[in-house]
Amino acid sequence: MHFEIKKRIDNELVKFIRNMDRVYSLRKISPLLFKEIKDFALRKGKRLRPILFIIGYLGFSEKVAPNLYTSAISLELLHDFLIIHDDIIDKSDMRRGKPSMHKKFDEYLSKYKNVKFTGQDLSIVVGDIMYAMAIHAFSSIKEENSRKEKALKNFLEAAIYTGAGEFIELLQGLKDIEDTTQEDIYKVYDLKTAFYSFARPLSTGAILAGANQYQTNRLFQSGINLGRAFQIKDDILGIFGDESKIGKSSLTGWRKSFIFFLTKSRKALIGKRN
Amino acid sequence: MHFEIKKRIDNELVKFIRNMDRVYSLRKISPLLFKEIKDFALRKGKRLRPILFIIGYLGFSEKVAPNLYTSAISLELLHDFLIIHDDIIDKSDMRRGKPSMHKKFDEYLSKYKNVKFTGQDLSIVVGDIMYAMAIHAFSSIKEENSRKEKALKNFLEAAIYTGAGEFIELLQGLKDIEDTTQEDIYKVYDLKTAFYSFARPLSTGAILAGANQYQTNRLFQSGINLGRAFQIKDDILGIFGDESKIGKSSLTGWRKSFIFFLTKSRKALIGKRN
Repeated sequence: MHFEIKKRIDNELVKFIRNMDRVYSLRKISPLLFKEIKDFALRKGKRLRPILFIIGYLGFSEKVAPNLYTSAISLELLHDFLIIHDDIIDKSDMRRGKPSMHKKFDEYLSKYKNVKFTGQDLSIVVGDIMYAMAIHAFSSIKEENSRKEKALKNFLEAAIYTGAGEFIELLQGLKDIEDTTQEDIYKVYDLKTAFYSFARPLSTGAILAGANQYQTNRLFQSGINLGRAFQIKDDILGIFGDESKIGKSSLTGWRKSFIFFLTKSRKALIGKRN
Repeated sequence: MHFEIKKRIDNELVKFIRNMDRVYSLRKISPLLFKEIKDFALRKGKRLRPILFIIGYLGFSEKVAPNLYTSAISLELLHDFLIIHDDIIDKSDMRRGKPSMHKKFDEYLSKYKNVKFTGQDLSIVVGDIMYAMAIHAFSSIKEENSRKEKALKNFLEAAIYTGAGEFIELLQGLKDIEDTTQEDIYKVYDLKTAFYSFARPLSTGAILAGANQYQTNRLFQSGINLGRAFQIKDDILGIFGDESKIGKSSLTGWRKSFIFFLTKSRKALIGKRN
């Protein structure tokens, strides 16, 4: 089932990007802008978030609402926008096995002399545009209005918490590693990753299908746990992984979570020996 | 009337920011994050966009829908998000008579040593969060669902076109001034400013109140003309204005529009003399 869902999501992405060009005349406004949005959105990926959204929906509905899959890809576009901005902040050069968005623009601009702006500047704006596209996609589903309104609030909450998670992760970089607590680390895990990658895709799909509060909360909590597990693995890959295999720059950001756990484990071991 | 509307908008902004803290526990997640969002959103401003939105609405409806004013301030929050990102790109230090968002964070970070990120990085994220808040605010109005859906599309279109306008404005910086056409300049004016500052606030308010296609289009077109007039004046102020009086950095960006017009006028004059 998962494989079939992924295939439909990939097809829907192609269709949606084409539709965005039709609706907003993007190619006419700037061929470069449209090309880079399209290339980035269609890069190979796991489509984890839209898949979880569809699974959350199908768990509570026998029928498939019109444009369900268009709404699903909003989570992929939200992810695109977040990683484009994240790569600027982390100064990451690689994403999904190719140059990150700002790196691509830097290469484009290197042909010109005396350029007074950077690939980062262009990428901030491209991320912002893809954010609006994500909400356009999200609002496409034909479902009961009360469910749609609730689902949109959930979608926005995911976006707000992801930003807040990035913000406090950066600020944690100002603290000494010894002063970082396990609670600090989980706060970043949950806000920055678990919400928008697992908990909200699952529970938002369920809300749209008519799941009740109890069911939605249970799904949400499972999503948080999945998110933490994913993040711990991602941090290990980020430190020991092979850049060419994981498709993104290793050791990015100021994430000290794994180093934190290593430090605490070492202390625990030393403690035991004494 | 305009003064009364502005007062209500200012009150609504205070209420909405407080509500955002209640809904998303922003202060608990990060007191600094909440403080900077609040301070920025509540800086004195003309509230031009929400006022035009309310005027557009009141022109076509005798009653005032619940939460009309909450929806109106979405346009102020959209503007906040756009100028926070714009100031990063333009390297502007001043906004609304105070340090720009990234400048404030740079001052905050200057107390620390070996900081591996910048005020710009924090501001990218804060802008993203305020974008989500803007959409949260926009969707608050209690109006007919078909109107709300159409209005949301219009709101998103404004966000997309503003981004596209910024993108092509940056790219125009690569061209020689002599190769820039009047059409190029108006394209940037319309996309980057006229849409989200004039045409869309007016027409989106009207759509929510039930105006028909013809009426909406007329309002939209007036907005475009207003936007061009505003932009020409803004460019003149940007070159000759006093920074302390206009409240933002002068000569920001790579906007060559006014210089373009000066060049063309000079040519026309020289032409006449010959």
